[in-house]
This record gives sequence, structure tokens and C-alpha cells, in this order.
Amino acid sequence: MGNTFGVLFRVTTWGESHGPAVGVVVDGCPPGIPLKEEDIQAELERRRPGRSGTSPRKEPDRVKILSGVYEGLTTGTPISLLVWNEDVDSTPYEELSEVFRPGHADYSYHAKYGIRDPRGGGRASARETVGRVAAGAVAKKVLEREGIGVFAFTLELGGVRCQRIDLAFARENWLYCPDPDALPLMEERLKEIQAEGDSVGGIVEVRVRGCPAGLGEPVFDKLDADLAKALMSIGAVKGVEVGSGFASARMLGSEHNDPLGPRGFESNNAGGILGGISTGQEIILRVAIKPIPSIRKPQRTVDLKGNPRRVEIRGRHDPSAIPRIVPVCEAMTRLVILDHLLRQRALKGPP
Amino acid sequence: MGNTFGVLFRVTTWGESHGPAVGVVVDGCPPGIPLKEEDIQAELERRRPGRSGTSPRKEPDRVKILSGVYEGLTTGTPISLLVWNEDVDSTPYEELSEVFRPGHADYSYHAKYGIRDPRGGGRASARETVGRVAAGAVAKKVLEREGIGVFAFTLELGGVRCQRIDLAFARENWLYCPDPDALPLMEERLKEIQAEGDSVGGIVEVRVRGCPAGLGEPVFDKLDADLAKALMSIGAVKGVEVGSGFASARMLGSEHNDPLGPRGFESNNAGGILGGISTGQEIILRVAIKPIPSIRKPQRTVDLKGNPRRVEIRGRHDPSAIPRIVPVCEAMTRLVILDHLLRQRALKGPP
Amino acid sequence: MGNTFGVLFRVTTWGESHGPAVGVVVDGCPPGIPLKEEDIQAELERRRPGRSGTSPRKEPDRVKILSGVYEGLTTGTPISLLVWNEDVDSTPYEELSEVFRPGHADYSYHAKYGIRDPRGGGRASARETVGRVAAGAVAKKVLEREGIGVFAFTLELGGVRCQRIDLAFARENWLYCPDPDALPLMEERLKEIQAEGDSVGGIVEVRVRGCPAGLGEPVFDKLDADLAKALMSIGAVKGVEVGSGFASARMLGSEHNDPLGPRGFESNNAGGILGGISTGQEIILRVAIKPIPSIRKPQRTVDLKGNPRRVEIRGRHDPSAIPRIVPVCEAMTRLVILDHLLRQRALKGPP
Amino acid sequence: MGNTFGVLFRVTTWGESHGPAVGVVVDGCPPGIPLKEEDIQAELERRRPGRSGTSPRKEPDRVKILSGVYEGLTTGTPISLLVWNEDVDSTPYEELSEVFRPGHADYSYHAKYGIRDPRGGGRASARETVGRVAAGAVAKKVLEREGIGVFAFTLELGGVRCQRIDLAFARENWLYCPDPDALPLMEERLKEIQAEGDSVGGIVEVRVRGCPAGLGEPVFDKLDADLAKALMSIGAVKGVEVGSGFASARMLGSEHNDPLGPRGFESNNAGGILGGISTGQEIILRVAIKPIPSIRKPQRTVDLKGNPRRVEIRGRHDPSAIPRIVPVCEAMTRLVILDHLLRQRALKGPP
Repeated sequence: MGNTFGVLFRVTTWGESHGPAVGVVVDGCPPGIPLKEEDIQAELERRRPGRSGTSPRKEPDRVKILSGVYEGLTTGTPISLLVWNEDVDSTPYEELSEVFRPGHADYSYHAKYGIRDPRGGGRASARETVGRVAAGAVAKKVLEREGIGVFAFTLELGGVRCQRIDLAFARENWLYCPDPDALPLMEERLKEIQAEGDSVGGIVEVRVRGCPAGLGEPVFDKLDADLAKALMSIGAVKGVEVGSGFASARMLGSEHNDPLGPRGFESNNAGGILGGISTGQEIILRVAIKPIPSIRKPQRTVDLKGNPRRVEIRGRHDPSAIPRIVPVCEAMTRLVILDHLLRQRALKGPP
Repeated sequence: MGNTFGVLFRVTTWGESHGPAVGVVVDGCPPGIPLKEEDIQAELERRRPGRSGTSPRKEPDRVKILSGVYEGLTTGTPISLLVWNEDVDSTPYEELSEVFRPGHADYSYHAKYGIRDPRGGGRASARETVGRVAAGAVAKKVLEREGIGVFAFTLELGGVRCQRIDLAFARENWLYCPDPDALPLMEERLKEIQAEGDSVGGIVEVRVRGCPAGLGEPVFDKLDADLAKALMSIGAVKGVEVGSGFASARMLGSEHNDPLGPRGFESNNAGGILGGISTGQEIILRVAIKPIPSIRKPQRTVDLKGNPRRVEIRGRHDPSAIPRIVPVCEAMTRLVILDHLLRQRALKGPP
Repeated sequence: MGNTFGVLFRVTTWGESHGPAVGVVVDGCPPGIPLKEEDIQAELERRRPGRSGTSPRKEPDRVKILSGVYEGLTTGTPISLLVWNEDVDSTPYEELSEVFRPGHADYSYHAKYGIRDPRGGGRASARETVGRVAAGAVAKKVLEREGIGVFAFTLELGGVRCQRIDLAFARENWLYCPDPDALPLMEERLKEIQAEGDSVGGIVEVRVRGCPAGLGEPVFDKLDADLAKALMSIGAVKGVEVGSGFASARMLGSEHNDPLGPRGFESNNAGGILGGISTGQEIILRVAIKPIPSIRKPQRTVDLKGNPRRVEIRGRHDPSAIPRIVPVCEAMTRLVILDHLLRQRALKGPP
Repeated sequence: MGNTFGVLFRVTTWGESHGPAVGVVVDGCPPGIPLKEEDIQAELERRRPGRSGTSPRKEPDRVKILSGVYEGLTTGTPISLLVWNEDVDSTPYEELSEVFRPGHADYSYHAKYGIRDPRGGGRASARETVGRVAAGAVAKKVLEREGIGVFAFTLELGGVRCQRIDLAFARENWLYCPDPDALPLMEERLKEIQAEGDSVGGIVEVRVRGCPAGLGEPVFDKLDADLAKALMSIGAVKGVEVGSGFASARMLGSEHNDPLGPRGFESNNAGGILGGISTGQEIILRVAIKPIPSIRKPQRTVDLKGNPRRVEIRGRHDPSAIPRIVPVCEAMTRLVILDHLLRQRALKGPP
């Protein structure tokens, strides 16, 4: 249960970190969309470790299209995408199979299923997001034809906050940092943290441009509600906000309400969504990322029988889920926007 | 579309603010649960205006059970609940039907449907939450038998933040404020704001006690993901966070990870959820509420033809969506917890 | 669970036979469709008892539109329809609450829920179909604009089979019999049966005209699969077939395959559906209706404790579910066709 | 859209006949169920061609478990099953890509998508059922632990009807024929038909034993309604009936109603389902199978431009969808029964 997302553009992911493969089935993609493995590969490259500064495991992640595409075009039937798990060494996990790592899903999976694949986090591994990003790459192809672009970047990392937003710059550095001045500070902070065997969190911002007004379904399937679910469903995410978000709590109505003029909205505290429906403005979301729980520092925990244990997680780990989570935020946002675009089409015809 | 929530405990709301009635159909309630109209009425009283300080419109909100209950017990068939709209004066809305009120859903509904019921906000009115709260009251009856309690309170209002949390106190004052020292400051702030014809936002905190470990479905239907959707689907909500939430972004892994000892978790930065599955700890959520958009102060906007207009919203309006939104947050949280409780039962039998 | 039907055009029915009311919430109706209570009333009249030959209980069935319509047009928000149960005498059911009536759902509801509303069959009553027919009337308004017509008639009743199909004639007689020669034979047969305190079954045929090619989703949500579910979900239905149906089992491929010529298909054994997708031909379905289980003749059964009992069901009952089931077959067919029309629109834009 | 089946036990199939592979993702399987590739392979063997009398293409169909199983036990996470398409010769289909084969889905797919993979029927190929049967094998493992058995057999083939039902015999012959006297007649009939370059239909009967009372959700998700959908969703199926089915149409209520005695129901015209809920009796379904549309005999059709064409389908084809469809009927029935078993557990705990 729970491994499918979307109403009309439906994505089902599967696979464990150290099983034979991970993958995704994309159902509901409109027919006639050009789609090549390279389109998907390009997005997978953006999330993979081995990019500068992230964990050195090589993870080639070659995606295979197994169905749904004929002579380079989608056919409207399910698109099955698969990535083999090639670099799998489960040895370091053997000793972890008997303890609950703090901050990990070990304890809750055990409570839920009474059984789990402990190798590499199993289903709860960040590797699960390969399927999400692959599906997001399909959605991207459809959204591009509608002129809709989704961009995410690292607004804050380890306490270093960006002061300006240069999207072009963000896309070209390995931390997806939009502020040239903040980038070296972030890199320095990550180095310190890694040296200490610790980790840090941060904030990712997501922007949607070119989204037509009218997407989102009142009252439960509001566009922001579905986006909140999509983003909160990513491991390590602890908060989601739209537009002025938590800052709204301290604003006055006269400050927060976005006035309308003949050229449209004159501000964007709403973050592009009013009453759960897009306004045609830029959609703005921010996502709080907790520090990655795998740290070298020794931690107190218990084993399966409840006995106190001390755990030190070996191997070289990323000091932050950022930047790998940035493309996942983009992917999930794309899934929601496309799903609602199709829903709106059902109602009114193509926008 | 979008007016149904839940997978196994399914709630469908309907109704416009100034139509004949509002209501909800609750499908999937287990049979044999004692349920009276008074049980639901008690929850509706907690959200209704006319309580001290909120808008003086009398709104009796007498709920009727139209189906699904026989001789005081639920039968497992759909429970239809209806509340007539008795205090309906649509006159003040006539002049508003031609303009888009800033901060309201007028513009986006118009963009989506090309038609809308402008009276009292129509479907986008806060009155829609009557159905949610009524459904939540049904969920409450089921959850109580499982020893699960959901409590929400006003953590912050108009910039006044509570310094201590006394849940018993919170339940007895009209602002659901848990801090006896903060209450008079909040009341004072609201008076000022109302005198200025303006409005303020705030933060609501929701806690779930007695929730068993194991609820939540990886990977998309995570418990926190579904809670985020549920809470973000409430009008005026601009952000949702779990446990340490946005503060996690500035924490170290060694600080954020909750250690486990023989008596369980020793802290709760996770907010009771790891890997999207409940841990058995208290679940803690916070919700950012924007200032209510209906303000007396004049605002710039446009009419349906795009001509600039100046709008002053008459009548006496609440200066904040809080406290009316507090019971709605409780209701939505209950819907999610119960739905996942039933899903988990399907997997493993009753917890 | 299970009281909602459809993916994009979603219908949720509620209500027990002898509760305060029955009703339906229709979610996903496109905006801007003219809709009056009379439109729905006209369809309800077609299913109601008290028409010649059916049971004489007066059952005014005045429908109320409670939401989703503003100034005579649908707004895209949920349409709540309600019919009060006015003619409710539960006395005859008191003695039946302790026994399982043969052929009724008493036994299985008891096994499922451990509790049931025995009055008038409760949720398992044919009265539940009021909500279906009301929802079907809304669907009809949308389908008419697309030039799609759904017509059902009584192909066979109590062993009397129609030899010719005159749809205009069918709509004007109380048995929905399309064959003027068969009508008096059917009426005679019903009289005999009623005199004997027994009941009979029959076959209803449904035809859909003007349905565009391309509706239906492979592989599980095939158009015929969804139609089969829709029709089989009607009480008393024991079989559903498409096109040549069960007769196909004895045909040769060279007989059954419908040849294509320049003017389209030259026969219609497929019943208008190939590979689960409409071909643009007339869609043809047939539905087997069992004899209504409420009969005056004494029957053997057991009570709640398993003791043998003899039951005689008093009151005057219809000798057949036909003709009341004919409009329900039309309604369910309309729900499926419209739902798939909207799904197809999401994929390709309006047909 | 439409490639996922089930509410709690959710099955998503993918793959084209002549693409790289076909497969299925099974979500919602309870954890702790022993599952090996051989369990699934055994079911796939039952549906594969190359068994005596069916088409001689060798089709090894070696299934791979790619996720959801750890150390031989299901973990509760999605089970991904894949079968490579090894014996793929698309040459004979090239000439068919420009014409609509009568009785095939060519025309309707073209109308729906405007594009299709013509090789081997693409998504509309019987090969799609590999995924269904593989998923059904997983369901079988769960159902066996509950003592629920599903058996299908060939009741009628090419006009030869079985006069007695020997389930043990049925499982051991290649036609799944339960009547030792009928088997040689069926084989003879098939030989004749094949010699003529034609094909025949038949009737498959499905029985469910050990199903507890109480499964099925009124009013739309009735057990028989979901079974009807499941079975009608199989290619070549033109009708579904339950219990006495279409014969009910000519029965009297006093004949059709199954009396209850102290030892339970005394007959089974209901086919084990009353009011859409299982009664605990054997569930009996019958499915009408049309003659397979691929025949050698020349047929009239048109090409993509509407020009008249004559088509002769080369290669050696099965003269009937039976017996390959028998295991598919079992698989689909299992999916429905298990899904409803889990739904009922959510309501009441394990039966």
C-alpha cells in the first residue's frame, strides 16, 4: 500500500536499496510524447551520488525503458522504468540488522511489518527516489510542451542562507546553491561537519513557472495540499510551506493579501495558490530537510530485544541529504502539477 | 473532484456557505460504534462563531444524522450528516460578485470554473469545514475506543507566542490558548487588530496521544505526508511541519536524531514519525495560519473585466481564522489517523 | 466503504429504506451545465413504484438540490441531492428482524457487520437506487450535450421474450417493453405470478448511442469491465453480457469477428467495444435479473440463533424487479460512460 | 490509466507483447508470506503456450522477483515481478500495422491514442496476462493460508458442454476440462476448427471454496460487481454470470431463493453472494469467451486510410483462448477475493 501516487498521472515505485533493482511504472502518460532513455538519464544524473562532494560510491544508474514507448514516442500505455542495483555491498549492514539506528526508519518499519530488509535501508533508503526522479523526468517532458518549468534550489544549508537567487547559477553547481557568495560558505560548512562525523539539514525552495491558473481541486485535493503531501513524502522532509508560509503567522491581513491590478497580482504572498487553486503566478514552496541520520559519531540505541546498544555507522556518508534531495523535490512537484493539469483538462478541455 | 478524503475511512463534504445546507457523507465507519447527534454537535459547537470574540452571527448548526445509525449504533453503512444554513443574508455579497477580493479564492475559482457562487465565499467559505468537523466527530468516537486522543491549541496568535503548554487550560478558553499568561495578551492583540479593521495569523499545534507504532504507508502515503495534505487542505493554512520541523534545517544530525533507550525514545525531534510510520511517541504537528483575508481596510483589486477597483469588505468579520480553525485541525488529524489505523488493521489485524 | 463510484465523475450514495432520507453526492460534474430539480425528478418518476402494476405504496420522491448549482447552472462543486423517506411504515419488518429472509441480503449483512437496520431492507433495499438514478440524471444532462443517449428496455420478462425492438414504444409503457405484441403477454404473466404470491426474473437490454470511439482504459478499467461492475452492482442482477455475450461461446471466429468496410463496422457482435475501448458503434449490454426475493409463499429459513423458521413476507410486493430496475440500468450506464468520457478528455482533450 | 487493480491488494501490470519485457508490481501484500520464484513460475506454466495443443511458440517465461521479498519472505513492500520477452519475431506484424484486424483492438486503440505498438498486439496482447497470473500467484500464497481455494475449468468449448465436474481431472489435462467424456470431443472439435483456419469460443467456470461470509462492500464495490469487472477485464470475455446467472431470468422467486436450514443454505442459486456480500457458500461464476479473433481465413477490413483491404493472419494460432484463459480467470478471482478479505479485516479484524 501507499506506493502509488497521483489520480490521472499515476506513478508506482518499487525496489529496495540492496535488492536486484529499483524502478517505477508510470501510468497515464499522454500518447505521442517523445521519450528517450537519455531524457530520464539526465535527471537521474542530477540526483546521483558521486557528484563532487557527495558520497563516492559509484552508482551508474543506467535506466531502461521496458514498455510504453514505441519508435521513440509514448503510446499511452504504462511506461516501466528500471535501474539495476549494481554497486551493492551489504556487509556493513549485517551488524546493523539487530539494532535500530536513531533517526532512521528501522524502528517504525519493524513495528509495522515485523520484518524488514535491513540492507542499505531497504525500502526506506534514499535509493527509492530513483523511481520518483525517473517518473518526474517523464512528467517533465509533458510539462515542457505546456511551457511549465519546475526548478528547485538550496535556499539554506547548515545554517548558511542564500541572500540572492540566481537560478542559472543554481543549476550549474553541485549544491544547487543559487547564491555565488553563499556557495563557498556552504562547502566549507559541509567539510567541517563531515570532519566531525556529523550531518546538517537545510531548506530547499521549489518554484513553478508557467503554470496556468485553475489547477487544483477544492476542497481536499487542493493544489497546495497535494504538493504538501508530495514533498512531505520525501524522506528527511520535516516541513512544507507555500508562499509566505510560516511567516504568514506574524503578518497582518493588509500586508498578506496580494492586491490585484490591471496587470495581475502585485505581490505573491499566496505563493501562486489561492483557495487551493493556482492563480497563474509563480508557485513558491519551501521544504525543511532534517540532517541526514547516518552519522559516524557514536549514538545510543537499543537492539531488537530492547537492550541498550551503542551504534557507530561506518562507511563514508553524505553530510547532508541536500543536494541529492533537490531533484527529488522537482520530480515530486512535477508529478503533482501534471496530475492536476490532466484533471483540469478533464473538466474543461486543454487549458 | 477532490471533495473526498481517505482510503478506508472516506469522507465526502458538500455545500456552499449560502446554499440550503452543508454536509458530509462518512463511508467506512466500523459498525457497532455508539453515535448520537449530540456527539457531533459538541464538536460543531467548538468551531462555531458566536463564541466569545468571534463573529456575532448566530449560526445554530444543528446537525442531523440521516443514515448509517440504527438504534444508536453505527451499522457500517454511510453516515450522512446535514446542517441547514439558517442565517443566510446574501445581500452584502451582491456587490462583491463582480470583483476579486484579495487573498480570497474568487480569482482562482473564476479561472478554474468560469462560474462561481459568490455568496459568502460559496464552496470556498470556512463554512465548508462544518462537514469536516462533523466527520471528525465520528472519527473521534472510533479513536477514543482505541485510546487515541487528538488535541490542538493555539501556539501563537498575532505575534503572541505561548511559553508553556497546559492542555487542560487550552480546552477551556475560547482561543484554545494553552498559556494562561499569553491569553490576555492574545485577546488584547485581537481587539487592537479588529479596531484597525485588519486581521492576523498564527500557529496551531496538534498533538496525537496514544497512537500505536506502525501507522503510515511507505512511500507516498506516509503518515506525515497524509497529515500534511490533510492540514494544508484547510483554507488559510500556509505551512505544516512535523516534530522539530523547519528548525531541523539548522540542527546537526547528532542533535536531531532521537536516541533510543530501554524505555523507548529519549527525545522527540521526529514528532512521533520516522520513515513516514508512527513510532508510538506523541505525534506533534504545527500549522501556519495566514491572516484571514476579509478585512475592513480598503484594498486594491480588479473586477471581472480587469478594471481597477477598490474594495471594502463590510460586515463584522473575525480578526483571525484562529480559534475557529483549531477544531478543524483536530478533525483532519483524526481522519488521517483513523484511516491509517484501518489500513494497518487490514495488514496485520487489529493493533 | 464501497459507496462511491467513478474516478472523475464520482458518485457517493447514502441512506436506508426506512431512515429519514436517501441521497447522493455527485462530485466532478463539469461547471456550467443547466440543472433543475425537475430534470432529476423526471428520472426518479421512471423508477418509482406506484406506476401501473408496481407496488401501490405512494412514494413521492421529491428530490432537493442542496448544493453545487447556482442560478440554474452547475458550478463544478459537489451536487448534493436528497429525497426524504415519507412513506415509512416499519411495523411489518419488526417480526422479520429476527430471521434471515431467503434470497435477501439479511444473512450476509449480518455476517459482515454483526448489526443491521432490518427495516425495509435498510441499505440493501431497492430504495438505495434513488441516489443512483438521481446521479444518473445529472450525468444525462452532460451526456446529452455530447449527443450521447442511453436507453434500456425489458428484453424478457417471466419467460416472455421480445421479438422486435421499438425503442419509442418501450419508453411509453410501464414495463419498458419494446415489443407491442409481447407487452400484453408480459402483463398477463405478471398477474398470474402475483396471484400465486410468487415473483419472476427477466433480462434488461441497454444501448448507448452516439458514444465516440476511444472511451475505456486498458487493461483493468476497460469500458466493458467498468460497465459490468456498474450493472452487477445493482441488486438482483446475476449476469452481464456485451454484444453477442454468452452466445459468443458457440460462435466461430469467422462468424464473430465484425468485418470493417469503408462505412465502418458491418456487424456488431462486439457490442461496440473492442479491447475494452469503444469503437463508435452502438454499445449493447444485457443484464440478467433474478426474481425479486420478497414473495408471499411460505419459505424455510432460520432465525439469528440458527433455529428453523417459516417465513411469509406480508404486504403487497412487486412481482418483478423489472420495470423498476430499467432506469437504474440506464443510470449506472450513464455514470460509466461519462466517467470515461472525462478520463479520455484528460488524455486527449475534448473528443 | 487503468493499469492498476484493487484497493488494498493493488496490482499494476505493464508491458507490450514485443517490447523488452512484461511485468507487474504487487503492492499491499501482507508481510511474512513465504514466496519463491517457483511459486509464481508454477502458475505461469499453467497459462503458457507450448503446452499440448496450444501454439508452438516456445515462451520460457522465467519470472524474476525484483523486490519485496527478503530471505524468502514478503516484507510488506511492493513486489516487482518481471518476465523478459525472449521469443519475439515482429516480422509478421509489419504488414499488419497498416490494417485493422477484425475482432482485435487495433481500431479502438488507434481511435483512443492515435498511436500504437502493432507488434503482437502490443499492450492488447494476451501476453499482458502474464502480469495478472504472476500477481495471482502471490495472492494464492496468501489465500492458501486462509484456507481459500480458487479453481477454474472449461465448462464448454466449441459447443461441447461438460456433463460432470471432476475438479481433480480438470487440473490434469491441458484443456482444464472437468469431464473425462467431454475431453476427447473438445480435442476433436479443436482439431477440426484449426484445420479450417477458424477459431471457437467457450465458457469457463470459476469456483471459490473456503471463502468466509462477509466479504464484499455494498453498494458499488459488491463482491460480485468487483468479480464481474475483474473477469470482464480479461480480453475475449463477453459475459459474466454469478450462480444461476442468466438462467435466473426464467426462474420463479420460489425456485430461485435458496432456503436456509440449520446446516446453512440448502441450495446455491445465489452463487455464494447475497446483496453483494459472500455468504460462506461456494462462490460460482461463469465467463463467456469469444472465439479468438486471429484466424487464417481471409477477412474483410480497412486500412488506416479507410480503404478496403483483405487480411489473412499468418503463423500458427491457437484455435481458442481457452485453455490459456483459465489460469487468468483464477488469477483475477484471487485478486478480488484477497482485496476484499483485506478490506473486511480493516473493518472487523481478521475473520
